[in-house]
Amino acid sequence: MALASALAVFEGGREAYLADLMAFIRFETVSAQSARAEDMRRCAEWICDQLGLAGIDARVVPTAKHPAVVGDSGPVPGRPSAPILLVYGHYDVQPVGDLSLWQSPPFEPTIRDGVIYARGSADDKGQVMTHLAALRSWKETGRPLPVRVKFLIEGEEEIGSAHLAELVREHAAELACDYVVLSDTGKYSDDIPSMAYSTRGLVYKEIVLVGPARDLHSGQYGGTVANPANVLAGILASLYDGNGRVTIPGFYDDVRPLSQTERENLAQHGMTDAQLLAATGSPAPFGEPGFTTTERYGARPTLDVNGLVSGYTDEGAATILPSRAAAKLSMRLVGDQDPDKISKAFDEAVRKACPATVRMTIMTHSQCGAYLAPTDSPGMQAAIQALTDSFGRPPILTREGGSLPILPMLKRTLGADSIMLGFSSPDCNAHGPNEFFRVSEFETGVRCVLRFLSLMGQGKS
Amino acid sequence: MALASALAVFEGGREAYLADLMAFIRFETVSAQSARAEDMRRCAEWICDQLGLAGIDARVVPTAKHPAVVGDSGPVPGRPSAPILLVYGHYDVQPVGDLSLWQSPPFEPTIRDGVIYARGSADDKGQVMTHLAALRSWKETGRPLPVRVKFLIEGEEEIGSAHLAELVREHAAELACDYVVLSDTGKYSDDIPSMAYSTRGLVYKEIVLVGPARDLHSGQYGGTVANPANVLAGILASLYDGNGRVTIPGFYDDVRPLSQTERENLAQHGMTDAQLLAATGSPAPFGEPGFTTTERYGARPTLDVNGLVSGYTDEGAATILPSRAAAKLSMRLVGDQDPDKISKAFDEAVRKACPATVRMTIMTHSQCGAYLAPTDSPGMQAAIQALTDSFGRPPILTREGGSLPILPMLKRTLGADSIMLGFSSPDCNAHGPNEFFRVSEFETGVRCVLRFLSLMGQGKS
Repeated sequence: MALASALAVFEGGREAYLADLMAFIRFETVSAQSARAEDMRRCAEWICDQLGLAGIDARVVPTAKHPAVVGDSGPVPGRPSAPILLVYGHYDVQPVGDLSLWQSPPFEPTIRDGVIYARGSADDKGQVMTHLAALRSWKETGRPLPVRVKFLIEGEEEIGSAHLAELVREHAAELACDYVVLSDTGKYSDDIPSMAYSTRGLVYKEIVLVGPARDLHSGQYGGTVANPANVLAGILASLYDGNGRVTIPGFYDDVRPLSQTERENLAQHGMTDAQLLAATGSPAPFGEPGFTTTERYGARPTLDVNGLVSGYTDEGAATILPSRAAAKLSMRLVGDQDPDKISKAFDEAVRKACPATVRMTIMTHSQCGAYLAPTDSPGMQAAIQALTDSFGRPPILTREGGSLPILPMLKRTLGADSIMLGFSSPDCNAHGPNEFFRVSEFETGVRCVLRFLSLMGQGKS
Repeated sequence: MALASALAVFEGGREAYLADLMAFIRFETVSAQSARAEDMRRCAEWICDQLGLAGIDARVVPTAKHPAVVGDSGPVPGRPSAPILLVYGHYDVQPVGDLSLWQSPPFEPTIRDGVIYARGSADDKGQVMTHLAALRSWKETGRPLPVRVKFLIEGEEEIGSAHLAELVREHAAELACDYVVLSDTGKYSDDIPSMAYSTRGLVYKEIVLVGPARDLHSGQYGGTVANPANVLAGILASLYDGNGRVTIPGFYDDVRPLSQTERENLAQHGMTDAQLLAATGSPAPFGEPGFTTTERYGARPTLDVNGLVSGYTDEGAATILPSRAAAKLSMRLVGDQDPDKISKAFDEAVRKACPATVRMTIMTHSQCGAYLAPTDSPGMQAAIQALTDSFGRPPILTREGGSLPILPMLKRTLGADSIMLGFSSPDCNAHGPNEFFRVSEFETGVRCVLRFLSLMGQGKS
């Protein structure tokens, strides 16, 4: 049994793997800070070396900013049709913020009560390390890997993955795979694993209206020229109704309906109304009639105004008729809504609602598709089984409300679905002070990855 | 002929009166700056001395901040029923702003090409001085004044006249009059006099909506709790239609309809659409159907959003569901709309439009009534005649779009209508750099005041 051997190897070398994770964390890989370019480069090379120890042929691939690491274990001897997995992760981290809020220095990983405190411990070095440790453990058994494993570890995730799509396109043949395995998400709770199979898309717009060329005296001109703030409120209000339904024509055309099975599945987890109110401080739940909070959150599209500004916003009163009014707003999409189509429908609805008495500009800040993977694929089933075996209970399958642009991008370019195998705690302070990853989470992660590799090797690709 | 004598006295003393105006201007009476308290006090005393020279018994009346000057010429000998005028003006001025924009120091009045450049030259010292000079000229004829003249010159006009209503209430008997004469407005153009007989009222509101207790991630919570910015747009849009009509129930109930005569009168002046667009830079005129720009501007009520703020308003995009959304908005009222009634109707409409999914606060920043005086009263007719005699053409009678809270206040407390006898140029840079008042405007003003006093003395009070 190769799996049992690999698990045994890992048990014997836990201290050493943990020490490697500590070394990984010590690189101050803040991608947002250009002064860290050298730390980034050194860390990428360190990852290559680690992959080399696991028998994986790896190299640093430069981009216009921070390099990525690409690796490949090569074909499985005697099993040319063995599944190919592409492990995606990132070695860059968020800035540390206010140092005084950290109990120990962010780049000096400190273990207190079995918890590793450090920037990047959970997001994403600890989780990337589960794969490195699993592959080295397997390598040390002397047996061939049950599947072919490729790696794509980028250094720009925390700054928007600006060069990733281009890199994947250019190296599409080299990165070709059956599944992407992404360990950059978390568990449902400390004891309960979860696996997201869908994320929402995003179309982010800004509307700017200009009426008069400058702010006017509302006494002098009020009533004689259009007020762009009045007009803006009218345009925004025309885009949705009071029940949380978006009224842009065609908006719901491509929303994939929820099956009864999926609704039942989603009903097994998620927030009660009381939990929702406690978590948000809102006075009441709100949303599309006929859907639960969990469904509204992950399986239904939305339109939210994210920002509004016009005229006088300081204390007190100023009687102006503002020259300009602007709104930022974003729509969260669900599969199979097409961001291009939604973007066009939005622009059309807004143009139709805008009178000729103001000048309008519509900007698109970003857009990405929703992602929705079937949960019955061999890869997902293997992941579900590996999580079940590692946690002693099956994972909760979730639809995430947020957006992960790399998922639809990888699906589009490589044709592969992503398996989100995440081990961090939901309250791990990713992006905040005192980020943490438990030693037990690291170890459970390695064991789960080993089981997943083994299960994937048993299945038919 | 007392008038002819008074006019002759003035002609002979023009230089001296001008010198007095210069002295008046040199007091740095910026009411907004507490360091100027001593300048304010000295200027108030100077006005008392000037009134004394005109035979008017005057004294400085302290308020909680800057003092006012109150004066009375006393009963007209042998004519106990002679009309009583109360001259209102202010000796405080706006801050000077950026000194580098002034061509000569703001408190060193400088005459260039017959134009007095200085802060306060037009607003309001030059105009107050027309009355001081007229009364001194009349005094020097040795003849009794044809009417009883009282004075109320305040020092807090530029900071909101916070203590004026209280002062007028406390001195109501002393200030009792048939008409208030207010010289703090302007001409229609350099050659054409005008007289406003109406100003709009104002109800200024702020709506603050709070949904979640903090900004939320729009991916994590979008669709599950109400977004206060979305809700705000809906509430605002429910208050007016796309044609500039306010839809608050009862809003137009007390709007006094325009008579055919008044419409014809208003049609003789005001802006063409081309002028409106040139003046504002707006792409199109806009307003209530069935009314001209001049009517919309002065004779119709409005609702303008003055400010909007919510969520993320900086560059770029942030996917937040904002905790808070706020709008400042003001309604301009016309006679006989009651600000209290409109304020209540607004609150009721807004509360009705606000769902229970957000918490709302409505604030009232200020409110004042509209003012509308009959144009056929003896005082108005005398003023029209005096302006006609002084300018060689009758004044344009206007409805002003802005608000002057002291007019309804004086009407309410003293029962007197106000006569707006203004001599400054419409482009006099009041409140801006290089404020000016022409020597000719000062002199025409004095002559006009003398004629007005004479005409008032001839009429029946």
